[in-house]
Amino acid sequence: QERVVLAQLKDVPAETQDGIAVSLQANIELPDEAESALANGATGIGLFRSEFLFIGRSELPTEEEQYQAYASVVRTMQHRPVTIRTLDIGADKALDGEATVATNPALGLRAIRYCLAHPDLFATQLRAILRASAHGTVRILIPMVAHMHEVRAARAAIASAMAELDLRGQSYSKNVEVGAMVEIPATAIAIEPFADALDFLSIGTNDLIQYTLAIDRADNEVAGLYDPLHPAILRLIANVINAGIRVGKSVALCGEMAGDPQLTRLLLGLGLTQFSMHPQQLLSVKREILRAHSNALRVQVATSLNRASPIDPASLH
Amino acid sequence: QERVVLAQLKDVPAETQDGIAVSLQANIELPDEAESALANGATGIGLFRSEFLFIGRSELPTEEEQYQAYASVVRTMQHRPVTIRTLDIGADKALDGEATVATNPALGLRAIRYCLAHPDLFATQLRAILRASAHGTVRILIPMVAHMHEVRAARAAIASAMAELDLRGQSYSKNVEVGAMVEIPATAIAIEPFADALDFLSIGTNDLIQYTLAIDRADNEVAGLYDPLHPAILRLIANVINAGIRVGKSVALCGEMAGDPQLTRLLLGLGLTQFSMHPQQLLSVKREILRAHSNALRVQVATSLNRASPIDPASLH
Ligand SMILES: [Mg+2]
Ligand SMILES: [Mg+2]
Repeated sequence: QERVVLAQLKDVPAETQDGIAVSLQANIELPDEAESALANGATGIGLFRSEFLFIGRSELPTEEEQYQAYASVVRTMQHRPVTIRTLDIGADKALDGEATVATNPALGLRAIRYCLAHPDLFATQLRAILRASAHGTVRILIPMVAHMHEVRAARAAIASAMAELDLRGQSYSKNVEVGAMVEIPATAIAIEPFADALDFLSIGTNDLIQYTLAIDRADNEVAGLYDPLHPAILRLIANVINAGIRVGKSVALCGEMAGDPQLTRLLLGLGLTQFSMHPQQLLSVKREILRAHSNALRVQVATSLNRASPIDPASLH
Repeated sequence: QERVVLAQLKDVPAETQDGIAVSLQANIELPDEAESALANGATGIGLFRSEFLFIGRSELPTEEEQYQAYASVVRTMQHRPVTIRTLDIGADKALDGEATVATNPALGLRAIRYCLAHPDLFATQLRAILRASAHGTVRILIPMVAHMHEVRAARAAIASAMAELDLRGQSYSKNVEVGAMVEIPATAIAIEPFADALDFLSIGTNDLIQYTLAIDRADNEVAGLYDPLHPAILRLIANVINAGIRVGKSVALCGEMAGDPQLTRLLLGLGLTQFSMHPQQLLSVKREILRAHSNALRVQVATSLNRASPIDPASLH
């Protein structure tokens, strides 16, 4: 019955009581899930993880195979934005046959660090993503950025991939936006140059919380210390959102916090207008948004952020 | 010859050209090193690591053995402050015979987390430290604090240890100060309640940099990304120093940055007045302090912090 009520919200625009439009997009791990995103009213794919193409096999996926996978999602989404995250591998998700030798893989050669250390692998993926952009609206999302030189290197790799496609005469959109995951504390703290240099930002709260609190959530001995409501986390989220507002860049949040309806009012109060989450969560979160008074929440949260005591999200109204 | 010049500075008070007094203390790992601290003009021990008592043996050290070790340093330092850090173990420095099973030990059950999970071990160490306080000026330093509930639990454990010593009729100083290492990003970001609840703070830049940048410096594949000058790091250091100034609490810095004479002007510019470092670095850093103009540096660094481009410490004068 709950499900029937929520289903009625599918085509209702996500807008707060005081008229703030909110974007609700989907996180997906496999191309098939794009259908479920649409069925739950997603206005785009905020995070398309590309690891499925690389994990559990002994050979790297070809450019063609990757292109087909990306393009199928782009076609399904019919010009709604599809945000494809470049390979986020190296930590828990090691490529098959590659031994993870790092003492602390979460603090090691992963994601963009791994891709910049494997330029051929990265170039192949970038060409495949760019080719998919010929069929709709594609955005490239770079994970685990912490240094501006990583942004510059990623942009250079994208420019090279475009040049290669030009040589080949293969089509792609020249307007593909390039953004970064904000999931390392340094990036969230000193966000300004990243907000300037990138087209959009996406806050990855799962990793951001782990690094900011120095805890591995998968480690049972310390999982109890994982706390999305730690004042430091909320300040970092606010800092990134505000930096995006100042320079007119889009800021989404794609960690599990985005899909928790108990945190929707809090995130609206922090100024968030773009949520990306598991498709199954979209309509519950939309219901919260439809009930919310955005400006009242912004005032309440701004006041709470400056207090020493933690915020109780249930107290926001 | 360099060494002879520096040796003349041993008893010169550390003071900038514009009359700002600076405290130069020593980090030590073994009781013997207190002599070297004094020989290099240290005005106290800013960080006495206690791991040497626990590592490379199959049985835990007794209270008496710990007490003797701590008291010997306290006696050597003759009423200069001795800051004893409670056990910082569990990550790379596992106790003998204990398998480190964590996937990411640096993000696991270490330091205060470990001690709170092993209350008898912690109580024994706290009693030994407190008993040493009867012979001079002892401060207790809690590593890896990220949550206020950890501060409250540590304070409760110290109160229990005092109560036990009262029962036994053993003497200790009731005025032992309790401080925390600021080495987890969350703590440095949301520092205010910690500055309020603790008697002093000590910034541990080695770990703070690693967590803030999400890199393990011991991992050769990413060690090149370790950057003490990342704008985020400098902002966190400034944030902690300023919070201490606002509530009148002492803030030291005890990571390797403190002992690098090329960073002395930068740290003075951030407002730091308490440095703790390897004894061998004390006089080189003192020489830099004697040459420095603190207020001019504060103006230059404040201006640079708000710029997007990184600070070049060599450009400060
Ligand atoms: Mg991540
Ligand atoms: Mg440490």
